[in-house]
Order: sequence, then C-alpha cells, then structure tokens
Amino acid sequence: MTDFKNRDIISITDFTRDEILSLCQTASKMYDLEKSGRRYSLRDALKNRSLASMFYEPSTRTRTSFNTAIRELGGSHDGFAGTEGTSIMKKETIRDTIMMMESNHFDVGVMRNPLDGSVQWAADVAKIPLINGGDGKNEHPTQSLLDIFTIYMMNGKKLDNISIGFGGDLSHGRTIRSLSMALSHFDNITIRWAAEDFLGMPKDLEDLLKSKHVKVERSEKVRDVMKNVQFYYMTRPQTERMKGVSQKDIIKMMQNYRIDLAKVDGFDLRLMHPLPINSEIAEIDYRVYFRPCQAFFQQAENGIFLRKALLYEMLSHDDYVQSDGTLNPATEFGNNHLQRAIKSRLKEHMFIDNIKRGMVLDHLAYGSAQDIVQKLGLMDREYFFVPASIPQSKKSFIKTDLSELTERECKEIAIRSPDPTINIIDQGDVQSKFVYLLCKNDNCITRAINEDVPPSFYEDEGVIRCRYCRRPYASSNPKVSEAELKSFVQSLPKSVNPL
Amino acid sequence: MTDFKNRDIISITDFTRDEILSLCQTASKMYDLEKSGRRYSLRDALKNRSLASMFYEPSTRTRTSFNTAIRELGGSHDGFAGTEGTSIMKKETIRDTIMMMESNHFDVGVMRNPLDGSVQWAADVAKIPLINGGDGKNEHPTQSLLDIFTIYMMNGKKLDNISIGFGGDLSHGRTIRSLSMALSHFDNITIRWAAEDFLGMPKDLEDLLKSKHVKVERSEKVRDVMKNVQFYYMTRPQTERMKGVSQKDIIKMMQNYRIDLAKVDGFDLRLMHPLPINSEIAEIDYRVYFRPCQAFFQQAENGIFLRKALLYEMLSHDDYVQSDGTLNPATEFGNNHLQRAIKSRLKEHMFIDNIKRGMVLDHLAYGSAQDIVQKLGLMDREYFFVPASIPQSKKSFIKTDLSELTERECKEIAIRSPDPTINIIDQGDVQSKFVYLLCKNDNCITRAINEDVPPSFYEDEGVIRCRYCRRPYASSNPKVSEAELKSFVQSLPKSVNPL
Amino acid sequence: MTDFKNRDIISITDFTRDEILSLCQTASKMYDLEKSGRRYSLRDALKNRSLASMFYEPSTRTRTSFNTAIRELGGSHDGFAGTEGTSIMKKETIRDTIMMMESNHFDVGVMRNPLDGSVQWAADVAKIPLINGGDGKNEHPTQSLLDIFTIYMMNGKKLDNISIGFGGDLSHGRTIRSLSMALSHFDNITIRWAAEDFLGMPKDLEDLLKSKHVKVERSEKVRDVMKNVQFYYMTRPQTERMKGVSQKDIIKMMQNYRIDLAKVDGFDLRLMHPLPINSEIAEIDYRVYFRPCQAFFQQAENGIFLRKALLYEMLSHDDYVQSDGTLNPATEFGNNHLQRAIKSRLKEHMFIDNIKRGMVLDHLAYGSAQDIVQKLGLMDREYFFVPASIPQSKKSFIKTDLSELTERECKEIAIRSPDPTINIIDQGDVQSKFVYLLCKNDNCITRAINEDVPPSFYEDEGVIRCRYCRRPYASSNPKVSEAELKSFVQSLPKSVNPL
Repeated sequence: MTDFKNRDIISITDFTRDEILSLCQTASKMYDLEKSGRRYSLRDALKNRSLASMFYEPSTRTRTSFNTAIRELGGSHDGFAGTEGTSIMKKETIRDTIMMMESNHFDVGVMRNPLDGSVQWAADVAKIPLINGGDGKNEHPTQSLLDIFTIYMMNGKKLDNISIGFGGDLSHGRTIRSLSMALSHFDNITIRWAAEDFLGMPKDLEDLLKSKHVKVERSEKVRDVMKNVQFYYMTRPQTERMKGVSQKDIIKMMQNYRIDLAKVDGFDLRLMHPLPINSEIAEIDYRVYFRPCQAFFQQAENGIFLRKALLYEMLSHDDYVQSDGTLNPATEFGNNHLQRAIKSRLKEHMFIDNIKRGMVLDHLAYGSAQDIVQKLGLMDREYFFVPASIPQSKKSFIKTDLSELTERECKEIAIRSPDPTINIIDQGDVQSKFVYLLCKNDNCITRAINEDVPPSFYEDEGVIRCRYCRRPYASSNPKVSEAELKSFVQSLPKSVNPL
Repeated sequence: MTDFKNRDIISITDFTRDEILSLCQTASKMYDLEKSGRRYSLRDALKNRSLASMFYEPSTRTRTSFNTAIRELGGSHDGFAGTEGTSIMKKETIRDTIMMMESNHFDVGVMRNPLDGSVQWAADVAKIPLINGGDGKNEHPTQSLLDIFTIYMMNGKKLDNISIGFGGDLSHGRTIRSLSMALSHFDNITIRWAAEDFLGMPKDLEDLLKSKHVKVERSEKVRDVMKNVQFYYMTRPQTERMKGVSQKDIIKMMQNYRIDLAKVDGFDLRLMHPLPINSEIAEIDYRVYFRPCQAFFQQAENGIFLRKALLYEMLSHDDYVQSDGTLNPATEFGNNHLQRAIKSRLKEHMFIDNIKRGMVLDHLAYGSAQDIVQKLGLMDREYFFVPASIPQSKKSFIKTDLSELTERECKEIAIRSPDPTINIIDQGDVQSKFVYLLCKNDNCITRAINEDVPPSFYEDEGVIRCRYCRRPYASSNPKVSEAELKSFVQSLPKSVNPL
Repeated sequence: MTDFKNRDIISITDFTRDEILSLCQTASKMYDLEKSGRRYSLRDALKNRSLASMFYEPSTRTRTSFNTAIRELGGSHDGFAGTEGTSIMKKETIRDTIMMMESNHFDVGVMRNPLDGSVQWAADVAKIPLINGGDGKNEHPTQSLLDIFTIYMMNGKKLDNISIGFGGDLSHGRTIRSLSMALSHFDNITIRWAAEDFLGMPKDLEDLLKSKHVKVERSEKVRDVMKNVQFYYMTRPQTERMKGVSQKDIIKMMQNYRIDLAKVDGFDLRLMHPLPINSEIAEIDYRVYFRPCQAFFQQAENGIFLRKALLYEMLSHDDYVQSDGTLNPATEFGNNHLQRAIKSRLKEHMFIDNIKRGMVLDHLAYGSAQDIVQKLGLMDREYFFVPASIPQSKKSFIKTDLSELTERECKEIAIRSPDPTINIIDQGDVQSKFVYLLCKNDNCITRAINEDVPPSFYEDEGVIRCRYCRRPYASSNPKVSEAELKSFVQSLPKSVNPL
C-alpha cells in the first residue's frame, strides 16, 4: 500500500495520508538510530548504490542533505551543480542529459531545474526513479515531507489535531501551499496567519483548504496567531518573484511581521522556517535563535532523516534498474494524440477557394498572423500565404500552401496564439482539422521549443491539467468544448499518467 | 598536554612548542607509512567520519590536500566551493550556513572565507571542531604547520638552531609572519632576508621577533642570504593587496630578487615556496625546479601528512559531536556586556534640556552626525533630532528622542564614528551611558552588519585584542581609559575566550 | 605486447591493432559483468586507488563517465572542473598544477585543457600516468576507443569488414578523423559520406585513409549512404570552430543532411553520435530516438565499460607510482638541444662591424623588427640596437649589443617571426649561430609563453612533428635544410620521445 520501490517522487500531492505516515515512521527510526549513537548501523544498506545529483540551479542545502543521506546509507553520489553544468550543456536537451546520466549506472537521481514540470518529464524519460529537488516555482516535495516530519516528531508522532501559524510570505512561494495541502490529509487541522495583504494567503488556496475541512483564520497581529498555535511556520519573502517591488518595500511590509523577541516571548510553541533566512530582511531576529522555541535547525537536520527514509524505501531491494539505451516509447507521442481527438469532426469549407493542397491556420489571436508568418519563414521558404484579420470576430487566420507542420512549428504558433485551429487541405478540400493544445504556463517545460516535450494532459477531480506543470488547462478556442477535452484526455494511453 | 581532540584550529599562535613538535612527530609517522609502501595501513582510522569542506573563495590546493588527507584515513568529504556556493547563499549568514552544515552530520569542517575572524566566529557557533583554511588576510594555520613540518623533516627532525632566508614579499602576505612566529618558539633561530623596501619585513614583525630572541638580519643581495642559511623561503608578491601598484612595477621590483640559477648555484640549501608560483612574475625561474635545492613540491606533499596527522589527532576517538539544533549561548551576547562595563559611571547633564526620553550620541567623529542621522532613518521614522558639531573640540553629537538602538544600529554608528558614547535619557535625565566598542579592522567579521557577530575582546600579554580578527584594540574615545577597558575585558565570561 | 600498465593515453594513433582489440575484449567482459547482474564483482579491483580529475574546461559527460568507471572498480576521484578551477590558478603553470596534484597521491589523472599538446606535456612532467580527456582541437582518445568498442560489440566482436557512413561535420571536429584512423588498422573498411562541401571530408584525410587501403566514397544523398552501410556516424557541426559562419548558415547547410525518419526508415543499420546533440540544429530529429537504429545512448554507456577496461589495465597491479617532489629532467632542456643542432656551422661575417659583443637576429619576417625590439624592451633596457629591413630579400634583421636571450625571449621572437637565425657575437666575431625552432600551431602549448614548455620534435614516417600538438613542422628559414632537421631530431634524447 505504501510501496516506494523505484517510484518517482514528483509532487507532495501524490502522497496519501498513509504514505506520509509511513515515511514519517521510517524517518523516525533513522532519527533514533542517529541519536542513540547507533549512527552507522545502516552504513551498508545502500552499498554500491549511487545517486545522480543533477542541479541545473545552484543549491547547497538540498544537495548536501541528499549527499549526506546517501552517504550515511553507504551509497555514493556524483553529478553536476550550478551554472558550470548548464553552460556546457546549454544546447543539450534535458532528455539527452537524463539518458546520459542514466547510462552512467546511477540507481536514483535528484534533479533541480528552473522549468516547471521538468522533473516529471525527466522521470518519464528515465528508467531509474527520480526525485524532484525543485522544478521552477512548482514543487519541492522532500521539503514538504521534512516539514511534515518535523511536526510529526514535535507533536508526539501524530499528525491529527494540529494548530499551525503561517507568516512571512504566504503568496509567492511554494512552501506554504505544499505544506498546507499535505496537512489537509489529517483531521482537525487549524491554520492561522497574519501578514500584509500583498504577502497573504491566496484566496484559491484558502478555498481549497476549507473544502478539505481545514480551518483557516486570519489574525491582525502576529502575537494573536502565536498565542493560539503549537507551531509557527515563518517564510522568507520571495523577492525574486515580485516584479516591480523593491527590497525596501519588502522590508517595510515586513516591519510588523518580523519575528523578534517581543513576538515570541511568553508563548509555548515551535518556530519553523525552511531556511535560508534572508539576513537583510532578517525575517527572524537573531536573538530568537537562542530561545527554546527555535526549531528550524532541527528541522534542517530532519531533512537528512526524511531523505534517508525515502532513499531506503526506494532502493533497499535487489531489483536493479538498468539502462538499455532505449527511450520510454510513451514519451514519443505528443499532439498526434491530441490531433486525433478533434480531427474526426465534420469538415468545413472555408477560405480555401484558391489552394488545392495546404492549410488554414484559424482562430488565431487578433493581430498575431504576421508574427506567425515570419516565424514559420513562409516568405523565405517561398510558400504562398495570406495572413488576414477579421475585426468583427476579433480573430486572425493564415491561408498557405505549406502542407505540413512539425511539432516545433505547432508550438511556435501556439506560443503566439493559444489553441489555434489547424485545417489540413488536400484536393481542394479540408481533409482534417485539429486544435493544437499547449499548456498556457509560460514557464512550463512543454513550451521550451528545443526540449521537444510532447504536450500532455490528464483529468484530476474534474479538472484538465498539464501532465508536467500540473496547471489547470482551459481552451480559449470556441471549437473545443470542455466535454470533448475530457473525453479526449480519458482516451490517452495510461503509461505516462500520473500515479 | 598536546590534546587536539575536537579542538578548533584557528591560528598558528595558539600552538605551543610542544604541540608543534607533537604534530610534527605524528606527521612524520604518516610520511613513513606512505614512503615505506604501507600507504594504506590507516585506511580505516577515520572510517565513517566526514569532513565539511566550506570554501567561500575558490581553492584547489588546500581543498584537494584536505580531501586527500581525509580520504587516505578512510573518511569522506562534501561541501561547497567558490562563487557558485556563495552566490546561492549571498544573503544567508555564516552562522546559519554553519548550523546547516553541522546538521548534516559532519565531524569536522575546514572553512575559507574572505572576512578576517570569520572562522573563529564559525567555530564559536559550531559544536563540531573547525579548521581555518584561510580567513581573509588573517591566518591559514595548516600552511604554517606544513612549512614547519617541512623544516623539521629536512633538518633531522629538529627545530632548534635553524637559519632561514626570506625573499619575495615579506610585507603583504600572512605566510612569512605566521612561519616566523611559529619558529620563534624554538632556540637559536636566525632569519635573514633581502627584498625591495616596499616588499621588506615590517618593522613591527622585526621588533616582535627580536623580543623573542630571534636574530633578524637584512642583506643587500639574495646571494648574501643564500650563503648563510639552510633554508630559503620564497614568496609570491601579493599584488592583489597592493593598491595603486601595477604588475609591471612589481616585475621591476622583483628584478634583483627573482630566484634563478645564478642565485642558487653553489649553495647547499633547500628552497621553499608555499605555491602557487606566479608564472608571469616567475619569482622562481623554471630552470631552478630541476636543481636539488628545490623543495617546494615535497613541501606541498608534506601538507597531506600534516593534515592527516591533524585530522587523526582531532577525530580518532569515539566521542562523536552531535548537532542538537541549538546555538552556543555564548554567541548571543555582544555589547550588552560591553555596555555594562561603562554604564555605572556617574551621570552627567548634557544637552538634554528639551527631551524627557531619548538619547544623546556623543563624541562622534567631527562631521559624521548628518550621515548617522540618515543611516538611522530618524527623519523617515519621524523622530526629533538635533545633529550638531562643535568645532573647538572637533567632535559632533546627536540629540534625539529615539530611545532604543538595535545592535545593528550601534554598529552602523560605530562604523561611521569609532567609539561613540551613547547616553540614555529618561525622565529628563541621563540614566546610563556607555561607549560602543567595535573592532577597527575594516575587514573584521564583527563589522559585517548582516552577520550579527557580537563584538568581543580579550587581553593577551597586556594588549586588548578583537576575539575574531585578533587585531589590537585601542579606544579613541577620551571617555574610556585603558585601565577600564582591561578590567572590563577581564570580567567577560570565559566560554568564548580563546584557548 | 599490449601492456597498459602505467602508460600515458595521449592519442588514438599510439594504439596498435592488437592493443585496440585487447582493450575491446576487456571492455566486453566489463559489459558482460554489468549486464549479467554481476555488476559489483570488480568492486574492489582498484580499492584505495584514486583518479585525479583535472578539467580546465567544463565537462559533464566525460567527467561523469570516468568517475563512474573508477567508482565501479572501487576507487575514488577528486580534482577540479571548469572556470572555477582555472580562475584561481590562472597564473599557475600546468607544470606546477600537475606536480601539486601528483603530490596528492593520485594514481592516475584525466585532464582536459584548451591548449593543443597540453596533456602530452603534463604527462612528460608527471610520474603518474595521464589520460587525455581532450586537449584543445587535438585528441580525445577514449572517445575514439569507445566508438570503436561500440562497433566491435554491434558487429559480432569483430572489427574487420566494416562499412560505415559519416555525416554532419566531417571537417571541423576531431571525432571523424580519430575514428577513421583507428579503423584503418583493420581489413576491408569502407567509409561512405554525404555532407555539404564546407562540412565534408578533408582531402588530406581522404588521401591518408586511401594510402592505408580504406575505401572512401562520397554520395550525393544521405539515403544513398544509409542503404550501403552497417553503421552511420552522425556528428554535430562544430560551430565554435567556424569563424564568420552563423548558426543560421549552419542550419541551412544541414537542411538536407539532418537525420530524420525519412532518412532512416527502411534501412537496417545502427546510428551513432558522440553526443551532445545540438537541440537547436537538431542534427538528429527526436523521433529517430525511438527507432531501433538508435545506438547512441548505448554508445554513451559503452564509454563506462571502455574506461573501466582502460583503468583496470593501467592500475590493477601492485606497483604504485610515488611522487618524490622532483621533476622529470627530460622536461628541462628545450632549445639548448635545438641550438646545438645548428651552431656547429661555419661562422659568417655579417653586419657586425661596430659591435664587439651582442647578437644579430637575422632572417626575420619582413617588417617584424620594430615589434620585436619593443617586445624585448631594448630601448627601456638601454641597449644599442639597429632594426633594419632589406626590401630586396624581403627580410628584416636586428643588430644589438644585448648578448643573451632567455627561452621566453626566444619564443617571443619566434612568435612574431618564425625560425629566426640568432647569431651570437663576441670579440667582434660571430661565435655561434642557431635557428630557433618553434611549433607553428598558434594553439600549441609550446607557444604559451608562461608555461615554459620546451619546443620538441620527433620524426614519424619521414615527417618532423611537434612532440606536443603533433602537427608537421617545416622550417621557412633558408638556413635550415630538411636533412639537417632530421639528423638533429634523431639525435634528441629518447626519454621524452612518444611511444
């Protein structure tokens, strides 16, 4: 029921209540081993196993924590980190890099990459299991798990009946969202928070939590939160994700919400923080570090135990995954599927009077036609084309005798104009038509042209989501109904479906 | 007597004569093991022990040498190096980073950081022992120890009765100073040197050495030194520490002092150099590399033996140091202590006629008041303030109804105006007054605002020194007498005192 | 006969037919061990051995592959990679760095460096064996060996009777040249290729292959090649080595030569590529990755087996190489040798009327005299000098009373004017004369002034070649005959001669 053997660890939302509890129990054993002085009793558990450490962005904290975990279990690690790694590989796809690393006989990989959904894609390609060490603004599941584990340990090894306060920046980071979603599996959870409006809890998250029977209450003052909770989880304002807001503005916003002695003294609670603390904003005053409430360094150490537990559950068996030089065939097919979904519709006559073979790109964003003509190089390649705009219906279209589009060309069109309708014309008639569906999250890996990641979607509780970044998808094209989309998604092959 | 178990290694000056000899003896055994082919007989000595390698500045030489040492004793290493590591952590304090690394279950750390005193601070924070791998311009004790060990090995395993020549740059680096201070423990030491005035031995070092019965003699020519010494220690001009001096100037200065065949041929001595040799200046000509006098590559290898000896002495016992998530409480208190030292003085009436509650910042550097007002943001924060300058006494002062200063604010004032007197006013009267003491070395870690390192001092042979960068401290404030300072320093708690 | 014990691995051309076959056999055993699940049976083969990984340029692929190889044999690795490593050492010579690394008790090193010939130089200096991981545009022998090994494995463990196609860029990289030279050892080899003229097979390579009885045939179209070969080896256009050619030009040139489904479908062959594939040019379309012909990820994995075989053959014996702090004396002597070669010629009277002691630099490139005067600093150093140019003979000369030249000064002259004749004048007469010989490859390590690498040459099948970059050398100085050069080279000491 809670089997982690060779399983990819992509999102905290993939974990059930039982899985979270089971991991906490194993991590707790790891903690006991260490603290009782039997530190090395599992030193050979993962002997001869190795971890591929693939950090496209620099990281000391997460990287060192994983390295310590595999080291203490007797395994080894190797890989790349930071700009150096990326500079050499700037024109190599993630797919090729992951295949290359897999061919180096690693047993498991941890990957951080700035693109949302990139680790899911890497996991689809790789045969070895992968762990998400942070994909863009998206997910960092081992952080959420170690947060939960810390609460578990400091709450008598139970996760029901928790009251927790949130502070700092509830809006721009992934930490608060992931942690509160993970907590929502448990009974009688109360979340209280106090923060500036700009940094406060997003409405959609509040609604979601309430739908899962989590109590959410906002307070005016930090001390009002403090006096009513067992845990206070402080976070760093994610200034790098706030365009047009200066460091000075942030310091001002934080003035009433910084954690200092005046805020914590007199309360019996544990103060958590995912670290690092920004020493300029000083969202936690250094005098607080010496108070008994300070729990964030124990929280950091707990990351080791949690990661040891995870690696142990994933790898302490005898079934080695071996590279055989071939790719997962499920990663080949992209919009071919999507195309099939719509192309059985009735053909229509439209603007095709004077071409025998070619296509009409229709329902384009108003005014985008000229840019698309340029990007496809229709003039250079000496194709006939008519870009047109229809002011009444606020749309544009392009008629051309170009008769084939590559996947990359489809993406270039959809990046400029979401959900284009593509009509294939042959023998003077529309032979088939389809709408090209592409995730609308700018930072999604499916929009990185050179990566060749096939757009893919799945249905989750009635919502169509991108397989990679997991953002909800809604078509803006009047030719695609919600029902059609769902029936199409249900018809997709299951092999690359999420857990 | 010479117990290195879990001891921090910060400065060569912390080592006694016996400790130096004892380390040399252990290192000599490490040398014999290697050279007699029994290379691997200590392969399990530090099994399951691990070294945290924390290089905020790039280093290949020192880092690789420590890595080899721990590897040959059966331990492992991990950590970060160079700009990559620092870029991610640019707003994290050293304190937080060291706590994070400690929570990763390392048994010992080596750290290099550009701030003077930074490794002492890290050692105060950390529970695991730390080794200074270079703190700014300050110290690099394992370099000095391997230099001493090289002399020991090449002088029949004795350190008395040594004659050594110094060349290159005696003024801008730490190597010559540290080595000669270490040698001063031994009997009948003679130092001879020849260099340009600008690169010559500093007067204070010469005086210090003479007070310790070391003979120091300057010669006109390098050959005059060569013919009278057993060892010649050449160093690289530290161009990066000479403002306004060009590479070309240096090459010219070095013209008569470069070591080439004409300088060494005919003498029986051993030529040392800490490496790297600058290939543009070529302070040692490459033809000399092939002469029997060349000892610097053996010196480099000796670094392995010395570091193995040190790690072995520090860690080959069964008492593991464990992180428990709490900080050393002695690192909390800073000027609170200092404040107490002076605040029992008699209260004085001064400029306080029109405020009931607030403070007077007095004895400020002439003309600094306006800058301090700005930095404290008195106008923005809508405090009443009067900045004033008194030409006759060449001082400035500020009167304000701001009644509290944070530690960071005290530092901002003292950076702009050393040793300010701070008068706390309440009920229309001076309730207490104190002088804020802050080390005057610009590169000292106590002056790095965000690091929150409490200023701390100790008395050593009658001199008050900064605990971190170890520079002598003298107050420029007429309100603080030397005697008061000393009696204050003696009253400091001993827990963070140097060895 | 095929003994790799402690042998330097510099160039694929150093390998005999038997050596290649022998390595393939050992690598094949490594493959079988892994694939039969006995992955760890050699885990202790190189226990306590360590690999120095010295990458002056970033590399993920080669570095990780070597790391995996040594790890799976039970050894360890350490070293430096990329700009970080080089920035700290930018003024340290390769010689000093290699001596420093050797003093760290590594048993073998792999090195990548941008200068041609740099790894041969490092190998001359080091006592431990070195492997070339890429020296500039020159060589990368383990890549060629793994390519050969891949063919061996996919051709029933035989290397005779091979037909192979080449595509992409046959002209600007080293891969095609090295692989085809290695194949030329075997019987009945046929090479077919199709590419743009600009990217096609160089005439000299074609001639060389034909002289070794390799069949070489060009086809118009890629499919014409495909239908007649067992293997197709695709390469990435080396845009970084094509001055004045844009990425766009390259994409256009590649239009008919990219490998896509239309090119491979219907043929029974194996598609190879050294990786990485450039995702912008996409010289192999991603749809091809899923076809059974795709062999490049297996090829990447084969790199592990080949490198394991190589390290195993080099190091699985009991003779440790130990650093003793001294340099290989053969690396000391440079042009001293060369000078001897010519200086026994008859003295001549020339332009020397008014100097008693000094020199005449003769046969200088027309117009180069003034630049040389400047570089030698003759004016600053207050030497007498007459730079002159003789339009009739299109040469320049310099007369000066400077009477000695350092090796670095000789190089500075020869960089500005190849093969200068240097006449040493004493007592008013030419006492000796010699021609200073320096490799003419701009990127050769012997031309990097600060590196102090002595120019050195050897004769190979009648051609004089630079010992380091192995480029053919021909003098442009009328005073040096081909016969003289050869007889001189034959008289060189053998100690640093190539294998």
